[in-house]
Amino acid sequence: MTNTLSRRVGRYALLLLGLVLLPSAAFAQEVSQEMFTVNNTWMLVATFLVFIMHLGFAALESGLTRAKNTVNILFKNTAIIAIGLLTYAIVGFNLMYPGDFSLGEFFGFAGFGLDPGAEGNTSAYNPGYTYYTDFIFQGMFAATAATIVSGAVAERIKLGSFLVFTTLYVAVIYPIAGSWKWGAGWLDQMGFYDFAGSTLVHSVGGWAALAGVIVLGPRLGKYVDGKVRPVAGHSMPLATIGVFLLWLGWYGFNGGSVLSADPALVSLVFVTTSLAAAAGVIGAMAASWGLQHKPDLSMVLNGSLAGLVGITAGADTVGVASAVVIGLVAGVIVVGSVLLLDRAKLDDPVGAISVHLVCGMWGTLAVGIFSTNPEHAFLTQLIGVLAYGVFCFIAAFVIFFALKASLGLRVDAEEERLGLDVGEHGMEAYGGFQITQA
Amino acid sequence: MTNTLSRRVGRYALLLLGLVLLPSAAFAQEVSQEMFTVNNTWMLVATFLVFIMHLGFAALESGLTRAKNTVNILFKNTAIIAIGLLTYAIVGFNLMYPGDFSLGEFFGFAGFGLDPGAEGNTSAYNPGYTYYTDFIFQGMFAATAATIVSGAVAERIKLGSFLVFTTLYVAVIYPIAGSWKWGAGWLDQMGFYDFAGSTLVHSVGGWAALAGVIVLGPRLGKYVDGKVRPVAGHSMPLATIGVFLLWLGWYGFNGGSVLSADPALVSLVFVTTSLAAAAGVIGAMAASWGLQHKPDLSMVLNGSLAGLVGITAGADTVGVASAVVIGLVAGVIVVGSVLLLDRAKLDDPVGAISVHLVCGMWGTLAVGIFSTNPEHAFLTQLIGVLAYGVFCFIAAFVIFFALKASLGLRVDAEEERLGLDVGEHGMEAYGGFQITQA
Amino acid sequence: MTNTLSRRVGRYALLLLGLVLLPSAAFAQEVSQEMFTVNNTWMLVATFLVFIMHLGFAALESGLTRAKNTVNILFKNTAIIAIGLLTYAIVGFNLMYPGDFSLGEFFGFAGFGLDPGAEGNTSAYNPGYTYYTDFIFQGMFAATAATIVSGAVAERIKLGSFLVFTTLYVAVIYPIAGSWKWGAGWLDQMGFYDFAGSTLVHSVGGWAALAGVIVLGPRLGKYVDGKVRPVAGHSMPLATIGVFLLWLGWYGFNGGSVLSADPALVSLVFVTTSLAAAAGVIGAMAASWGLQHKPDLSMVLNGSLAGLVGITAGADTVGVASAVVIGLVAGVIVVGSVLLLDRAKLDDPVGAISVHLVCGMWGTLAVGIFSTNPEHAFLTQLIGVLAYGVFCFIAAFVIFFALKASLGLRVDAEEERLGLDVGEHGMEAYGGFQITQA
Repeated sequence: MTNTLSRRVGRYALLLLGLVLLPSAAFAQEVSQEMFTVNNTWMLVATFLVFIMHLGFAALESGLTRAKNTVNILFKNTAIIAIGLLTYAIVGFNLMYPGDFSLGEFFGFAGFGLDPGAEGNTSAYNPGYTYYTDFIFQGMFAATAATIVSGAVAERIKLGSFLVFTTLYVAVIYPIAGSWKWGAGWLDQMGFYDFAGSTLVHSVGGWAALAGVIVLGPRLGKYVDGKVRPVAGHSMPLATIGVFLLWLGWYGFNGGSVLSADPALVSLVFVTTSLAAAAGVIGAMAASWGLQHKPDLSMVLNGSLAGLVGITAGADTVGVASAVVIGLVAGVIVVGSVLLLDRAKLDDPVGAISVHLVCGMWGTLAVGIFSTNPEHAFLTQLIGVLAYGVFCFIAAFVIFFALKASLGLRVDAEEERLGLDVGEHGMEAYGGFQITQA
Repeated sequence: MTNTLSRRVGRYALLLLGLVLLPSAAFAQEVSQEMFTVNNTWMLVATFLVFIMHLGFAALESGLTRAKNTVNILFKNTAIIAIGLLTYAIVGFNLMYPGDFSLGEFFGFAGFGLDPGAEGNTSAYNPGYTYYTDFIFQGMFAATAATIVSGAVAERIKLGSFLVFTTLYVAVIYPIAGSWKWGAGWLDQMGFYDFAGSTLVHSVGGWAALAGVIVLGPRLGKYVDGKVRPVAGHSMPLATIGVFLLWLGWYGFNGGSVLSADPALVSLVFVTTSLAAAAGVIGAMAASWGLQHKPDLSMVLNGSLAGLVGITAGADTVGVASAVVIGLVAGVIVVGSVLLLDRAKLDDPVGAISVHLVCGMWGTLAVGIFSTNPEHAFLTQLIGVLAYGVFCFIAAFVIFFALKASLGLRVDAEEERLGLDVGEHGMEAYGGFQITQA
Repeated sequence: MTNTLSRRVGRYALLLLGLVLLPSAAFAQEVSQEMFTVNNTWMLVATFLVFIMHLGFAALESGLTRAKNTVNILFKNTAIIAIGLLTYAIVGFNLMYPGDFSLGEFFGFAGFGLDPGAEGNTSAYNPGYTYYTDFIFQGMFAATAATIVSGAVAERIKLGSFLVFTTLYVAVIYPIAGSWKWGAGWLDQMGFYDFAGSTLVHSVGGWAALAGVIVLGPRLGKYVDGKVRPVAGHSMPLATIGVFLLWLGWYGFNGGSVLSADPALVSLVFVTTSLAAAAGVIGAMAASWGLQHKPDLSMVLNGSLAGLVGITAGADTVGVASAVVIGLVAGVIVVGSVLLLDRAKLDDPVGAISVHLVCGMWGTLAVGIFSTNPEHAFLTQLIGVLAYGVFCFIAAFVIFFALKASLGLRVDAEEERLGLDVGEHGMEAYGGFQITQA
């Protein structure tokens, strides 16, 4: 990266920091109506891209699990986006961007519901987008955290209990955690950096996934006599569709996190995001070919996601070569992590903990190593990673534990054997599937 | 919604009304080349989003039906988009936006083919888009009406007859009906409001679906000895992919119906659309859990579509809370409607009538209840709903009946049992599907 | 050439030509920051649309082949996009747009890696996009050529050898070939025209597909005792998803090839692209119904792709009616070509040669027939088609032959019978697929 560009990026990063720091404040300078319209249009494009990630998660998760639990998984993912959007409108948005913090920059709340106010739909609210664009873009992010959990606890969790967990985690825990950085809370003031959510979204979801897996225990028959018995997914095409849609959505996830259509920054983010994903594929392919002797498709798919999660924290602030390194390392890490978690008998059917938590941590720390902005420090990044870990793991653990003690968390063994589709929904995913030929 | 915003929305709605009223007239004021380019770019983005809805329909419809009819359904949906675009270029566009009406604001025709004229690709044609953008955006809508019919008549209609119906309905009936409102015809002059087509697209398709179901009769074995025998869909992942793609496409369907990239209006439309879809999921989940004891995935999927169809008529003119109510009610309605249609022995394999006709009517009437624009009146909305019902149902019924009497409408019983894939196409959807394992 | 072309197509084409001819040079006139931002935003939207074509290829190819080779196909397609992006960053981009040619306008190289330089992220680099946008848009195109090959050689090629071929072809052959026209090389100076790549992308991939099929030979059991035994695809829904996603992506492939958000040109390109695809469906439907007696879904799907490939060379320079003719002819051609290739015992499991090579040639020649620009001459187009044919076929043949002689190109007969999924990857695509019901 040339010095000139470095300076440009630095300048834009500062501008961006300003936008993040003052999300609901009035802006000193407005932009032309034309520029405001381009910016807002890009943010809405980014919004529908993030939306489609929910289909990506649904497809990936159902593809990597068994056919007898497919309806349940699709149902959960459809419910999550609905619950996520509605609770974010009611409380989440105002918890995440409270304006004033009442509890020492740890907690604030701006009241229930949406209120654009007098300037909400003008560039006086924000030169990059209207109030409603702000809400809907962030709302699409919110449900993602719970979606990550869904994969890890699949094939054994009770539907009702999962929906209660989702509602609480998306409505309360995710936005409070988010406010610490994106809402201008204590970690933001400390200089912690997470561009688009390696930690704020992916690790926040990943910690809850880990808590859920621990409280639930492994699926029946997964670990028998000290051996790992692989449970094959029922549709690799579905899993692949999921991963490509997630990759597609990431252009909105990271590209939209620029918070405007700024040509220099958005195009840089597209390049770092793409190359990190590509490098993640290569890293996982090499690791899988080396460790497992034959290259595993699910590892390679998770490798691309690992690269994407890894680059998310620093997509606007690392160079192109650094992005490749970050993705490559993430691709190797995810393969190792999947194998190690199985050794530890932590049963995560889709590899969600490895992809979102482990690579989310890696990506956040990588900002402290590779960032072109000298203000980003490894130690601060580490503090952020640990703070989110403590808060989110404990919060998720408590909720899961309380659900276990009250509603019950796990379906009974008979239902688990027959599948949750019939047990929870009274229907099958492939009921009308009778092939005449063979 | 604050008074200030109400006023803003009202003002934009008036501007929008102006755009709709004068689609081919010269505009008093042009916009800057920059603004014209942003507007046009957004309209083209909306265009490709509406395009992808056709894949959504294909996936949803084939997912909810049996594997033996899958090729036929995919074939129909591929043919519809092709026939729809071509006939719209030849006659539809000029029937829908005739400029001058020759039959008392009920019918007009501006001639065959496309002709941008001198100003077609400049902002003098329209500050929001070029002539070609106008055509292709509207053309993507056009085929939708026939796609809706496809689902209702699935698993028993002859391919050739269906294609003839589609051609006539898309080329002639849909655009004439559309001209009454969007072409500045009599209903528009009466003050009827349908922002993006709860009635003009969804009910227009839904009435034809109802006519088709009545003329065709139910599938063999669906109603036996007075009992409803459920026919399970063959792939719920496919159905879910379909619904998420439809939801995605709706951001273009509704977002593009603003007819410019206006930040205030497009972002409001994104929020009302999203929250109505989310509320539709919740409404259907509650209704299904209550009435059917276990939450049905296909009901929840149709719930999101119900919310989307419901909000389509007023997405730019109702408040956020109203959008939630409209979606919630639509989600409940669709579950009730699906169960009631089965009692009436109207066999609609995918629930198209309930989603598109019933919720389309609900959404259109809801404008008369929830609109922030005092000029929108319930009675006028009701007149519009009835007028479209009478015209479209009769037109579709006549075409279907004429086809039944001439080419024949229904495949014979033997072919219906074996499946239309082999009968109509000589191939199977899953012919090369031999899993070695088991 | 520049002046003559500009007279015919207008000032936008002049600008466009300038962009193509001088991709890394400074521009005499810059645009407003607003216009630059709209242009760049559209190019990034086009980028993610082209990205999703890779999922389209993966779905189409796996849908049209047997379940036992599905993992292998999905793996290849995931690896290709990764290899394509990374090699394009390292060498491809600078081979394709070398600036100076060292070998008589046949070959040039601007050095390894990406370097935006001082003006790379400003409109001084290019009024339509930043340096990084330029790279990532072109990078998405690059991998496409190898993806085309993947389908033709499916179900029998060794994974390792295919990946080596892909790397060489994408990193070296594709960009050198591309430089002849888009990099302002000798064919560009001769007046050859290929708007978005009927030849530069599709035929370049198609020639390699043909070479691969010849060197590999047909699948076991495809041609027995002089008869063609059809091998049914394992999932027509997957194939249909693939085709619709490819069609969707084509709006970015062709729409982005305008290299700006120019309203007149991009909207024209959307219309010609859409109508050619639609006409391709109709052409293939008619040909298939006529020749095969029953309309074949895979033919119709390939018909839409045929129309899209056909219009790609002239999407900005032919009229709307010509686009329909081009698509219609392409749809007929593809059906005939598929049947003829089978007679010639050239086994192409997905019809890639017919779609991409044959219709790519047709589309390129069609520019010489239908272009509204009198500078476009049939003879020049023919020279271009032949030049690419000679270079690409020989290059691909040599690589495939060398691989056959070294690593080996084809899996052994036992592995081919059991499927490449188990043989190359040790896993199955539908391992966890056990339907409880039937």
